[in-house]
Amino acid sequence: MKLVPVGVSARHIHLSQEHVEVLFGEGAQLTEMKPLSQPGQYAANEQVAVIGPKGTFPKVRILGPARKATQLEVSRTDAFALGVNPPVRESGNIEGTPGITLKGPAGEVTISEGVIVAARHIHFHTDDAERFGIADKQHLTVRLQGERGLVLENVIARVSPEFALDMHIDTDEANAAGAKTGDMAEIIG
Amino acid sequence: MKLVPVGVSARHIHLSQEHVEVLFGEGAQLTEMKPLSQPGQYAANEQVAVIGPKGTFPKVRILGPARKATQLEVSRTDAFALGVNPPVRESGNIEGTPGITLKGPAGEVTISEGVIVAARHIHFHTDDAERFGIADKQHLTVRLQGERGLVLENVIARVSPEFALDMHIDTDEANAAGAKTGDMAEIIG
Repeated sequence: MKLVPVGVSARHIHLSQEHVEVLFGEGAQLTEMKPLSQPGQYAANEQVAVIGPKGTFPKVRILGPARKATQLEVSRTDAFALGVNPPVRESGNIEGTPGITLKGPAGEVTISEGVIVAARHIHFHTDDAERFGIADKQHLTVRLQGERGLVLENVIARVSPEFALDMHIDTDEANAAGAKTGDMAEIIG
Repeated sequence: MKLVPVGVSARHIHLSQEHVEVLFGEGAQLTEMKPLSQPGQYAANEQVAVIGPKGTFPKVRILGPARKATQLEVSRTDAFALGVNPPVRESGNIEGTPGITLKGPAGEVTISEGVIVAARHIHFHTDDAERFGIADKQHLTVRLQGERGLVLENVIARVSPEFALDMHIDTDEANAAGAKTGDMAEIIG
């Protein structure tokens, strides 16, 4: 059995260093609250308000470290609440996606693109990928068991020596499946 | 191919006639706004506030006609927002489920049970069930296609000469699948 642990991603944001400084002040740096499953990644102490045309989330967690481009990851449910219509995209692929307004203690910025619904994916360490016979970018089929048993198609494999084995799904997917972080899922195809 | 249309159920409530009168006044009757896919069922003009320990939904649609027992159907996402922890149940099976407070223009009532996350199900007219070779209460496996392709397990068949063919999923399931009302799903097992 090819088993992978499930990690449920709530809405979160990645910021460029430029936007960290606009929102938190010149020279500001993100500070680590707790590490994430992927090595070097962390939930920051800092949060921002995300202001959409229809609704606002006053406190959205920032994940660090700072990235090249600012990217807000929301569920489809969140997107309805904000009043934006983001596509399902892989992280980093933000061309042509909707923008949004961000507000921090030191300032405000409106990004012209960067809002996505994250495509479900599995992080494989190179060794796990080899053991399971899985290639980077492969589309996988994964079963979550239980009362709300679901088989997820189009789960994207991402392979790197920097990754730890973990399947990332969003809160809509987790709730539809009755799944939570730490559950195990099975790759079935 | 065994194809069924998808109907996405947003949060809604069924009321007993007793509770209709507590919330809307003595002798009050639900009034029809628009018919639903199931014959005789309708979305009412009336709405109620639903007040949980953590959050409130100020306007929840009532579905009519009045039933024997009051029953609030929410998604898992809604349940987190309200601060209740309902089980996944078939409609009508509310024993041991959480209660909640309801508020209407004429009064307020706290029910001691009745909050559920509706188990996904398909309504089959007896003729459809016969054509597809499906029995009442059978658990089915159903595929929703697309970018967020999903296979739903444990979809409960409900067969009656009073039903129209329709698969009911909640907003978490619809959003996880990228599905909307009117999409077609395929019974694959």
